[in-house]
Amino acid sequence: MSMRNIRLRLAYDGTAYAGWQRQPLPQGMTVQYRLEQALSALFREQIVVTGAGRTDSGVHALGQTANFYCHKPVPVENIPLALNHKLPPDIRVLSAEEVPMSFHARYDAKSKTYRYLIQRQARANPFTYRYAWTMEEDLDVAAMRQGAGYLLGSHDFCHYAASGVSASHFVRNITELRIDEPPQPPTLFPWEYVCRPLTVTVTADGFLYRMVRLITCRLAAVGLGKIPPEAMADFLQGRPGPNIAMAPAQGLTLMEVEY
Amino acid sequence: MSMRNIRLRLAYDGTAYAGWQRQPLPQGMTVQYRLEQALSALFREQIVVTGAGRTDSGVHALGQTANFYCHKPVPVENIPLALNHKLPPDIRVLSAEEVPMSFHARYDAKSKTYRYLIQRQARANPFTYRYAWTMEEDLDVAAMRQGAGYLLGSHDFCHYAASGVSASHFVRNITELRIDEPPQPPTLFPWEYVCRPLTVTVTADGFLYRMVRLITCRLAAVGLGKIPPEAMADFLQGRPGPNIAMAPAQGLTLMEVEY
Repeated sequence: MSMRNIRLRLAYDGTAYAGWQRQPLPQGMTVQYRLEQALSALFREQIVVTGAGRTDSGVHALGQTANFYCHKPVPVENIPLALNHKLPPDIRVLSAEEVPMSFHARYDAKSKTYRYLIQRQARANPFTYRYAWTMEEDLDVAAMRQGAGYLLGSHDFCHYAASGVSASHFVRNITELRIDEPPQPPTLFPWEYVCRPLTVTVTADGFLYRMVRLITCRLAAVGLGKIPPEAMADFLQGRPGPNIAMAPAQGLTLMEVEY
Repeated sequence: MSMRNIRLRLAYDGTAYAGWQRQPLPQGMTVQYRLEQALSALFREQIVVTGAGRTDSGVHALGQTANFYCHKPVPVENIPLALNHKLPPDIRVLSAEEVPMSFHARYDAKSKTYRYLIQRQARANPFTYRYAWTMEEDLDVAAMRQGAGYLLGSHDFCHYAASGVSASHFVRNITELRIDEPPQPPTLFPWEYVCRPLTVTVTADGFLYRMVRLITCRLAAVGLGKIPPEAMADFLQGRPGPNIAMAPAQGLTLMEVEY
């Protein structure tokens, strides 16, 4: 049996998981662990997957990508349904395709897109709190957009990274950083009702540890008038600002990995 | 201080609750208990609420209605935000208004509307499993609609009620029973992605114990071809059919109470 390289597209609700990356079990169940368990059972061999992005504890994904090597000739079109039967309902495989042996989910990713949701306490609904940061006050979106402008392009983002995960260099290229107030969609399902979160969408060639959440909580501080838009540029230079609480994990979703 | 009668509109995610109705705590936390706790703290007197519908364990609500009497002159427009601060994030008060002293949330309700969501396993996403019944096979919607037609209007629904809660009579008037395949909305939020559940929407002047879930699981059996559409009418007459598993609670949402 010849070896194959399979690429999966995955969505998961991160609420119950200690993030993507496999780790010793006492530290918590992870998405990678669950996926490797399901794959190993399906292919009856020890499968190790490579994920495009190591999402943090509590962070969600709509378009996580992972690849793995296997021998057993399970038809690729059967893999999503077969895996979904073995996975818990909060992890879903959306698609599977055979890719060249050289494909690597992390190294080959050209960019990734994350989205962060912020909802107003007064408009919050009981179905969204697991997926959004709930705030008391209104945000000044124009000021946030001005602040976001300073981060576009290639910069050294070392002051937009939390310590804890090492990186060989800190230069990243943000190609898009958008703040949207989406219109209220037609109400069909419970979780659409009332909710109208502000979205912060970021695309970059790579992200440092907690970079999106650091960008978001600082942009929120701009929106609240706690710091001026220019402070976003000052942070890049390492100029200290006021203490700003980290944006919570549950508001963040890995939307897409672009190859 | 004169007495006031306040009507609340509520939404809740029923996942964590043993239903609406207050009961001795060892049997589980309920929405009514949590709400009365929050109201009693806010008004500094013992508050008892009357809900329009006793939703079951695990059932959600977008438009539950409740009323309560109080003395303290808290401005009615401040009540939702004040209560939401005291409530857990899976229970939200949407609005409050002062109503005549004679208003009774249950007796004055002219009708109620419930919605049940059914999603296909293959299209399921990790954000919807708490709010929908996930099925393996496609459903024949035309056959389901034909079956639903037999239930419209006034009928004795005693064979569409589970035992366990007493009712003085079993005649109910179903004014609407609709099966929809909503179009895929624009993807803005994680929980919209991939999901395109079938919805069963029922409006009636009242509902018996587990009536919507019994209607839904039998309609699903019609959709799967296990029973013919006419079996929906046979059930009304008490004619026994094949054993059909109850539709699970998590798919059901109380959408609206009409006065």
